[in-house]
Amino acid sequence: MSLIVHKYGGTSMGSTERIQNVARRVAKWHRAGHQMVVVPSAMSGETNRLLGLAREITDNPDPRELDQIAATGEQVSVGLLALALQKQGVKARSYTGWQVPVRTNSAYTKARIESIDDARVREDLGNGYVVIITGFQGIDGAGSITTLGRGGSDTSAVAVAAALKAEECLIYTDVDGVYTTDPRIEPDARRLAKITFEEMLEMASLGSKVLQIRSVEFAGKYKVKTRVLSSLTDPDIDLQEEAQSGTLITYEEDDTMEQAVISGIAFNRDEAKITIAGVPDKPGVAYRILGPVAQANVDVDMIIQNASHDGMTDFSFTVHRNELQKALDVLQAKVQPEINAREISGDNQICKVSVVGIGMRSHVGIASQMFETLAAEGINIQMISTSEIKISVVIADKYMELAVRALHKAFGLS
Amino acid sequence: MSLIVHKYGGTSMGSTERIQNVARRVAKWHRAGHQMVVVPSAMSGETNRLLGLAREITDNPDPRELDQIAATGEQVSVGLLALALQKQGVKARSYTGWQVPVRTNSAYTKARIESIDDARVREDLGNGYVVIITGFQGIDGAGSITTLGRGGSDTSAVAVAAALKAEECLIYTDVDGVYTTDPRIEPDARRLAKITFEEMLEMASLGSKVLQIRSVEFAGKYKVKTRVLSSLTDPDIDLQEEAQSGTLITYEEDDTMEQAVISGIAFNRDEAKITIAGVPDKPGVAYRILGPVAQANVDVDMIIQNASHDGMTDFSFTVHRNELQKALDVLQAKVQPEINAREISGDNQICKVSVVGIGMRSHVGIASQMFETLAAEGINIQMISTSEIKISVVIADKYMELAVRALHKAFGLS
Repeated sequence: MSLIVHKYGGTSMGSTERIQNVARRVAKWHRAGHQMVVVPSAMSGETNRLLGLAREITDNPDPRELDQIAATGEQVSVGLLALALQKQGVKARSYTGWQVPVRTNSAYTKARIESIDDARVREDLGNGYVVIITGFQGIDGAGSITTLGRGGSDTSAVAVAAALKAEECLIYTDVDGVYTTDPRIEPDARRLAKITFEEMLEMASLGSKVLQIRSVEFAGKYKVKTRVLSSLTDPDIDLQEEAQSGTLITYEEDDTMEQAVISGIAFNRDEAKITIAGVPDKPGVAYRILGPVAQANVDVDMIIQNASHDGMTDFSFTVHRNELQKALDVLQAKVQPEINAREISGDNQICKVSVVGIGMRSHVGIASQMFETLAAEGINIQMISTSEIKISVVIADKYMELAVRALHKAFGLS
Repeated sequence: MSLIVHKYGGTSMGSTERIQNVARRVAKWHRAGHQMVVVPSAMSGETNRLLGLAREITDNPDPRELDQIAATGEQVSVGLLALALQKQGVKARSYTGWQVPVRTNSAYTKARIESIDDARVREDLGNGYVVIITGFQGIDGAGSITTLGRGGSDTSAVAVAAALKAEECLIYTDVDGVYTTDPRIEPDARRLAKITFEEMLEMASLGSKVLQIRSVEFAGKYKVKTRVLSSLTDPDIDLQEEAQSGTLITYEEDDTMEQAVISGIAFNRDEAKITIAGVPDKPGVAYRILGPVAQANVDVDMIIQNASHDGMTDFSFTVHRNELQKALDVLQAKVQPEINAREISGDNQICKVSVVGIGMRSHVGIASQMFETLAAEGINIQMISTSEIKISVVIADKYMELAVRALHKAFGLS
């Protein structure tokens, strides 16, 4: 008998009929002798409906009140799932984040979990209950409700699994695992049986939107075995088969890890590139450029500073496409008078493509193989950025599918 | 400067546009220098939507989980109203029942308020905030959410007003006060400027569904001045005019009370009559009849036992029309074998009409005037029941409108 955490996304909870399917699946695990904790999301569309009501009133809502409103979606879900489990003849009890409690800081709409009290949950589990806990939310030191941001239920589930030292955290979703790249771009994309947290972090942050990135950090930090698997299978499917399906995200490179050098190809077409050409190359120039951008709450992703020529350098970075104009406005108004650059330009016709793989650490030549592959397709590389386990390039948007497919083939992922 | 509690019903909170009208009204009171606490209901239809989801899953839901689900409707309302007030430039903060906290017993779906902690609310009021508190709900000793039953937001508002020793509790609703009878039955029905709690209790329990009856008991017990008034007026109407509108429910018969003997005519067509004829008149017969009925959770309203003839008596009582068959089944299965009555019969073609008035205490002849009026219209009286301030009769359903209009005229209420 082991303690298992299940997490179900909004699509799985999308109707009372689907909620009853979730209950059948959970009941199956419970009857097999596992102690079960379930963390469901709000019914699909519900969080958007709630935030839409707030937006009908104001464009600039108080984040505390926004969380007060948004947290109700999951509260409805946990109650309904408890009823559905009880109907299956399973003892079940639901808790909100504040009832557990899941303690967070006070950063409303994007709070971070600080601690989870496991006493109440353990007592119920000991008494044979399935415990259902709202995802996405907690309570701050002042007793106000907080939410963890979009996709926060993934983080809730992993954090609960960490607090309870669960055997495994199963994230049920509408995809059946993590793929070498997006199957809509490359039909030969293959599901990975295992992936390390580090690779998953790079894949997730680069646009393979399977899990909230913070949940992966959490899983890595607290060594929670986390599995992404499909909620669309028959709920009465054989438990052993289900338990081996999907993709396991592990915190160690064990012997059974696939020996591929590259795990996958990630991509992101939500970014735009800003280039500041002809900047005097003096100490502090990066800060003088990016300080005002950060103050305007514009997130910056890749940052490249080219070698200096004649005391002048070119400085490039990427931002979210929606924030390109805002960033350019800040640069023109606040930065240009200070640094007197030759030119400031923006380009939103770009994309980022990355190869990710923990095997890269011990293999030379991955970068050159990547650049060679792109060159053979006639694709010009505009920016390059590397980490220990990934290489990212910025290329013209229109080449994205071509680049992904070529790299997927070149690295033997098909 | 005084402390005022406003309560808004589901219709007033029915859309974000209406919520913004509520905010304008509250802001007007706040700017006039009052400390304001607002208790809103869920948006109209929302509680039914939530309970409907639960019913899609099970016909017999666990009441704790039902309350977990149903309480979210008001939580959304308080958040939205806080946003709308902030948009009006007013400092506002929302609290759920558990955040205040409003402590209740554990009778899920029909909990009773035990105490309200006023510390947090007072601190916010002192700092110039409008405080918004969810109606309908609280928290029990185990930390679970409870709800107070249908219309419970009225009770929440009055209880909050009592805890804070508010100057007045204003219940904004879609009617503009308490009438001498239902204007849909008698077009000459007149709005009462004042009514005592005792009269209001009789009016409410007899079917004039303006306020939840428990809220009136609460208001009477804790001497909370409560006013029922319209939420459909222009929110920017003159405050003094608004403050005098509607119907004030007072806890004392002051000099300015209207001197009418009868305040109003109430009626109820939701009841059915059960008659058990030819019962041996022995001690304990009432208990032997009603005990099994009560055990089956059937509520009984009027109870009449006629005088005994030859050691036999007739016993009649009324139940909710929806529970007539259930009550008859219990009587046939469990009671008849014990008491061996001559006949047990049910009639759902009845209604109850009552005259209510605190002046009745000191005036004889009200009953005879009532019976004379009904006789003059050829209406046969089937049952009679009296209290200190009301007289109720059961008559055939089809005569209801006729009886109400005749009594309204006879007692000079038009």
